[in-house]
Amino acid sequence: METVTEIISAEALLAHWQGHRTLTRRVIEAFPEKELFEFSIGGMRPFSKIVMELLGIAGPGLKEIVSGQSSPLNESFDNITTKAQLLEKWDEENAVVNEYFPQITPERFHETFNLFGMYEAPVIYSIQYFIDNEIHHRGQGYVYLRALGVEPPPFWER
Amino acid sequence: METVTEIISAEALLAHWQGHRTLTRRVIEAFPEKELFEFSIGGMRPFSKIVMELLGIAGPGLKEIVSGQSSPLNESFDNITTKAQLLEKWDEENAVVNEYFPQITPERFHETFNLFGMYEAPVIYSIQYFIDNEIHHRGQGYVYLRALGVEPPPFWER
Repeated sequence: METVTEIISAEALLAHWQGHRTLTRRVIEAFPEKELFEFSIGGMRPFSKIVMELLGIAGPGLKEIVSGQSSPLNESFDNITTKAQLLEKWDEENAVVNEYFPQITPERFHETFNLFGMYEAPVIYSIQYFIDNEIHHRGQGYVYLRALGVEPPPFWER
Repeated sequence: METVTEIISAEALLAHWQGHRTLTRRVIEAFPEKELFEFSIGGMRPFSKIVMELLGIAGPGLKEIVSGQSSPLNESFDNITTKAQLLEKWDEENAVVNEYFPQITPERFHETFNLFGMYEAPVIYSIQYFIDNEIHHRGQGYVYLRALGVEPPPFWER
């Protein structure tokens, strides 16, 4: 049941996020291989590690929200050591997002859930956090690329 | 009229954005005075100029959406030369956001509008852009702060 008062539907929110995920994938691709795993500024993580944080959150987080079963957050993917592997994992998790997001019922978005056994919040807040956190960290990747003399993909192209 | 299927209400979206705006204000405050206007990485703009882009978009954009009258985008604020002035302008535009956002009717969110006479899109897309663009650029400010040896405010504190 939908009414005209709904400003963002679940479908629209997923499409919006997927636009962002496409852009994040392009930013990963834009990195030179070595710098993706080694370059950093001001003691921050290399972009590969930042992407691993995103990989640990989106798909696993949605699975928890749908199943109602919390597990600890895992952001380490020691088996990923190349850009190709990172992109492959990105695509795998993308499929998870597309499979699980539509299983969240409208009512579930407003229920409180203890994400990763640590973050107690309404489901919609957690999902907005997933998206915002990806935008935030990808923006940092833009600075890394500029510092490396690489032109990043346009922000508005999704 | 609201139904249980609405995952994000207009009020919730404004509250979400205001959380982000509070954090962006804290990031501006965290910059040392001189570096706010001069420091940059990889040929990018100093953070003050980035903030001026945000100032040129949010309040003026909402006024256009409510009035239906487009004007050219203005991102230059030559009279702002200190952090105190930048924060003062931020607070002024914050009041504009709080005044105009609630005037957008549910139907208006789905109407197409030619923002700044340049960006033809449904109003909800433009507003999501305002928020995402702020998160994106603020993420860049985090890298500047880290490069300057300044601890940024936590991303999750709004």
